[in-house]
Amino acid sequence: MCRTKKTQSIMSLVTVGTVAFDTIETPFGKAERVIGGAATYISLAASYFTKDLNLVSVVGDDFPEEELQYLRKRGINLDGLEIKAGEKSFFWAGRYHNDMNSRDTLTTELNVLADFKPKLPADYRDAKFLMLGNLTPEIQMKVIRQMKKQPKLTVLATMNFWMDVAMPALKRVLKKVDVLTINDEEARQLSGEYSLVKAARVIHKMGPKFLVIKKGEHGAILFQGDKMFYAPALPLAEVFDPTGAGDTFAGGFIGYLAKTGNISFENMKRAVIYGSAMASFCVEEFSISRLKKLRAAEIRGRVNQFHRLVKFTAK
Amino acid sequence: MCRTKKTQSIMSLVTVGTVAFDTIETPFGKAERVIGGAATYISLAASYFTKDLNLVSVVGDDFPEEELQYLRKRGINLDGLEIKAGEKSFFWAGRYHNDMNSRDTLTTELNVLADFKPKLPADYRDAKFLMLGNLTPEIQMKVIRQMKKQPKLTVLATMNFWMDVAMPALKRVLKKVDVLTINDEEARQLSGEYSLVKAARVIHKMGPKFLVIKKGEHGAILFQGDKMFYAPALPLAEVFDPTGAGDTFAGGFIGYLAKTGNISFENMKRAVIYGSAMASFCVEEFSISRLKKLRAAEIRGRVNQFHRLVKFTAK
Repeated sequence: MCRTKKTQSIMSLVTVGTVAFDTIETPFGKAERVIGGAATYISLAASYFTKDLNLVSVVGDDFPEEELQYLRKRGINLDGLEIKAGEKSFFWAGRYHNDMNSRDTLTTELNVLADFKPKLPADYRDAKFLMLGNLTPEIQMKVIRQMKKQPKLTVLATMNFWMDVAMPALKRVLKKVDVLTINDEEARQLSGEYSLVKAARVIHKMGPKFLVIKKGEHGAILFQGDKMFYAPALPLAEVFDPTGAGDTFAGGFIGYLAKTGNISFENMKRAVIYGSAMASFCVEEFSISRLKKLRAAEIRGRVNQFHRLVKFTAK
Repeated sequence: MCRTKKTQSIMSLVTVGTVAFDTIETPFGKAERVIGGAATYISLAASYFTKDLNLVSVVGDDFPEEELQYLRKRGINLDGLEIKAGEKSFFWAGRYHNDMNSRDTLTTELNVLADFKPKLPADYRDAKFLMLGNLTPEIQMKVIRQMKKQPKLTVLATMNFWMDVAMPALKRVLKKVDVLTINDEEARQLSGEYSLVKAARVIHKMGPKFLVIKKGEHGAILFQGDKMFYAPALPLAEVFDPTGAGDTFAGGFIGYLAKTGNISFENMKRAVIYGSAMASFCVEEFSISRLKKLRAAEIRGRVNQFHRLVKFTAK
């Protein structure tokens, strides 16, 4: 069968975000300068669902070539990854508290990220799915403007920091996206409403038709208009390292949507479950270690666990 | 058909707990000296499921006779309610913060509760279901000792306060109960484990075969051995007054179990959902106001909402 470039890229996914080094301290140990970054976690998680993956980011020439080779091997196109000679990659160091739910940032070195100007290769610009990882709203907007036409679905991740320092720019970019994914405290800050139901109503009016509120160990809620879907997190005996769990969730979510090409509420529910399953693996080991060795059967098995976790029959 | 006293009481429920006055301040308003108390909420919630209800508590002669009449009208036997002449009922006053998730106690007047010695009427002592509302572990133990034989199911509620001041007595009573219902922070305190999965394992070893961990707006998790069931809370636009939500949950839970007479894990899942549905009504108005006017069709409707909230089909 003959497949043209056009049909191959119909469900292509472009992911913009950081590719970075992390140093992580948890009550279980310390991992120094391991692979991190939103775009890394997102793309790697998505690679378990779909193969037309395209990454946009920037690293220094200190980033290990074998790690880039590994991402390519997973089907991730790195034409959009700028490698800046003589510069250093983004670096973050953090320490988790005993409860693993809160952490202190010890170091943030922007390095190459300080003047990151994303440039999408020509063949990225007609992608059907666009995942904007947490970055400044201005950079996220620059990426949206480089798309030749509006993607089938644009998902945006952001954080409280941009609400504090760049709310007007964040509000401008929110008008351009279909799905916003933030945590419960951020939803409250963005909307000024404590009730998540009311917060969702306010945020829908800001632009995003869909809202995914991530609640960490308490799961995630998907909102579309008056419709709600609650996906609990799988209660785990051990959470080894929560770094990247939110991005891994987003990668599983958009990866599943890109694979199926279906953005109905019903299918988005499944995408939330796949995202939750991927996140539940991510936290089992430091960095991307667990994601690297994941098998398809394990993902299916965990989705079945989510099914059993909430299933009841009315009598 | 002839029904003997014996068969009538097969699925009878005895509830021990406070019957009290509350003064409640929330961001929405203030309610002064309204009806409260664990046994009130538990019995009233259970009365929507089953009718062989028996209450054990103590009030002063300041407690309004019409409120007692109302409870009797709901099928709640008050032979076990001691009314102390010349004394005052238990009184609690609290103020909720803006987030409605935390509160300050302003006043606690034990009054009649200070020397409460529960005395079970003879025909309570062969009850099949026993609900021990939050009281001192010593009082809870005294009730257990008055039962002629071990009930089919004993459910115990407690709180962090008793873990702080009466842990040895609490541990003794835990050995005698089948189900413990506490919140997530209390489960962590009792077990010394942060992970709720590990906390459940520790608590199972203390006695209770079943554990219900209530997480407020994040729902509830039922544990039995390695089995888990996660019931999310229904996200609500308005939470008017959270007082009594936990007791209302317990009342719906044990009321449904007493009605069905089935204490399998599968049926207990349904009981958790019915408890969650009842709690979601409780918070809609001050005191027991919403529970007083509840209709069976509304309960069925809300259980259906819970079903839709978590339902997804794997593809």
